[in-house]
Amino acid sequence: MKISIERAALLKAVSQAQSVVERRNTIPILANVLIEAEGNEVQFRATDLDIEVVDKAPAMVERAGATTVSAVTLHEIVRKLPEGALVTLSEDGAAGRLTVAAGRSNFNLATLPKDDFPVMASSEYASNFSASAPVLRRLFDKSKFAISTEETRYYLNGVYMHVAESEEGRKLRCVATDGHRLARIDADLPEGAEAMPGVIVPRKTVGELRKLLDDDETKVAVSVSETKVRFATPEITLTSKVIDGTFPDYTRVIPQGNTRKMEVDASDFAKAVDRVATVSSERSRAVKLALDEDRLVLSVNAPDSGAAEEELAVAYGDERLEIGFNAKYLLEIASQVDRENAVFLFNTAGDPTLMREGNDTSAVYVVMPMRV
Amino acid sequence: MKISIERAALLKAVSQAQSVVERRNTIPILANVLIEAEGNEVQFRATDLDIEVVDKAPAMVERAGATTVSAVTLHEIVRKLPEGALVTLSEDGAAGRLTVAAGRSNFNLATLPKDDFPVMASSEYASNFSASAPVLRRLFDKSKFAISTEETRYYLNGVYMHVAESEEGRKLRCVATDGHRLARIDADLPEGAEAMPGVIVPRKTVGELRKLLDDDETKVAVSVSETKVRFATPEITLTSKVIDGTFPDYTRVIPQGNTRKMEVDASDFAKAVDRVATVSSERSRAVKLALDEDRLVLSVNAPDSGAAEEELAVAYGDERLEIGFNAKYLLEIASQVDRENAVFLFNTAGDPTLMREGNDTSAVYVVMPMRV
Repeated sequence: MKISIERAALLKAVSQAQSVVERRNTIPILANVLIEAEGNEVQFRATDLDIEVVDKAPAMVERAGATTVSAVTLHEIVRKLPEGALVTLSEDGAAGRLTVAAGRSNFNLATLPKDDFPVMASSEYASNFSASAPVLRRLFDKSKFAISTEETRYYLNGVYMHVAESEEGRKLRCVATDGHRLARIDADLPEGAEAMPGVIVPRKTVGELRKLLDDDETKVAVSVSETKVRFATPEITLTSKVIDGTFPDYTRVIPQGNTRKMEVDASDFAKAVDRVATVSSERSRAVKLALDEDRLVLSVNAPDSGAAEEELAVAYGDERLEIGFNAKYLLEIASQVDRENAVFLFNTAGDPTLMREGNDTSAVYVVMPMRV
Repeated sequence: MKISIERAALLKAVSQAQSVVERRNTIPILANVLIEAEGNEVQFRATDLDIEVVDKAPAMVERAGATTVSAVTLHEIVRKLPEGALVTLSEDGAAGRLTVAAGRSNFNLATLPKDDFPVMASSEYASNFSASAPVLRRLFDKSKFAISTEETRYYLNGVYMHVAESEEGRKLRCVATDGHRLARIDADLPEGAEAMPGVIVPRKTVGELRKLLDDDETKVAVSVSETKVRFATPEITLTSKVIDGTFPDYTRVIPQGNTRKMEVDASDFAKAVDRVATVSSERSRAVKLALDEDRLVLSVNAPDSGAAEEELAVAYGDERLEIGFNAKYLLEIASQVDRENAVFLFNTAGDPTLMREGNDTSAVYVVMPMRV
């Protein structure tokens, strides 16, 4: 193999690949990236056995071939090369070394045989559709904060992407919950997604996917089967196993009969929650919301360290209500609100509370109260 | 006590105070800041028993008095208050609570009695002089990287500030070393510093001092005794115990007879060292420098992971030399160089190497070689 490639193109491709590689793993080949050069293109492939990412970049291929080298070392080298450098990767097979050359720098990296690299088996996908980067970004960005980190509840360690019936018809929906809070985000159902099986996309995959979605113009090809999900742009293909479990019936958790409505400036609300929470101890950061005629008083009482209180003007016309929440959960859902106003719908102090952005029901959050 | 103070002034004063407070300490009062209001000024005092910082800020003092509250909590609260807020601190003594009020926010913090606060005993200082912020910044910034972190060699855990004889007369000098590398930085001796005893300024004090030196216009009053050092600006007074030990005779470590001179672009050199070091394992990052007629070849050989080589144009007219160094140490001293050229003076591959910035002998670095 012998190729020449621009540093910028190489860096982009290798960056995505190396981020999938697990820093600590006991199987040496999994630390490596598989480099395959053919035609006028080079492919970089990395995997942790659950996720596989393949990056393509244009290159001058003088001699086709393939090999594997440490993803982290290659990334570090390319990152440190001067901007605008032309990089040559060459390997003659016999020596078991890859040479990376640029200007007066020369690197010689240990390789492992390309045939030892575990390429993910290809699959049949039940459903193939296309979605724009902003749509996918919204679905996952607004839901991922609620993903559970409890390993025993592995079926909550991801975002449940599925087709759902809403009042406005069928939607592409992402749901995440950890039992304390829940996020339910809807988007218009893309053509071809109707028959998509519901899948739980693992937390790490959600993180890797995010890197494909920075460019607003990107169209992403999504493929879904019962066991795998694939997101592909013209340059990058991300394939991931999905979580083998059943996502609980979340619909029962979303309160339908909450009628006490409070409307508040989302940013003011988040800042006030953040401020009053300062005085409480780390573990049980309970914030009390006391609601009365167009008036919200947020308060925290931590006997050891102190107390805090803040008043906010809100729109509220129902009867007096006092309800407590974990400060972190309140902050997180308030910071999801893109528009000015957050609408809270309460029932009693013991019932789950619903929050949405203005009157938009395509992004709905549920948070469990705490006794205060 | 009752005072009103602008948020910006309060934040600045409390920031400096809270950074001295140790996060983990078993004596509750040491987590607190002592607030003393009198005249038209408020003082914030914090200590870890080795370092004391006193910050003054202008305030409207309605009722003089003093109390102590958690430095971290107060800082967090003030940081989160909106910009431009006017903050009222009030305390009536009896309740054991300090009220912090701003706009519609109200905080009530637990206090500890002001008499329990350990105020550092005042001292007689043998030497008092004045130095500008840029001069002190240079002395400590360029030397602190070489401070030892080995606790058993406590006498190396700081910067040795003293008066020294140089070829150009008496100087104010800062020296730090960990046995592997050494930095020796000189400045013109300020008036009044002639009789200053040599003191070892602890690492943490160097870090806290750095915050006083951001403004180029600041004049710092320095006071030194055998046991303490004090740095004072009009707003902030930083007092610190010095390390009770004897700094070793570093002059014997600085090679005098090194004649093989290499001149190199400091930035190019640092980048090349950084690049070739990429392939080697973390622990023994040895870089080999091979010097020949106006040519430097940097190389690293790590049998497991690979090898790297890079050539640099340098000015060198002496005989062929091969010498190895710890990559981290080389990088650190190269990054101290402000001007374009770094001058290295070698002896043999087994002897310490000297580096300076161009022909300026007021900043000199020594680094021990490694066998490669």
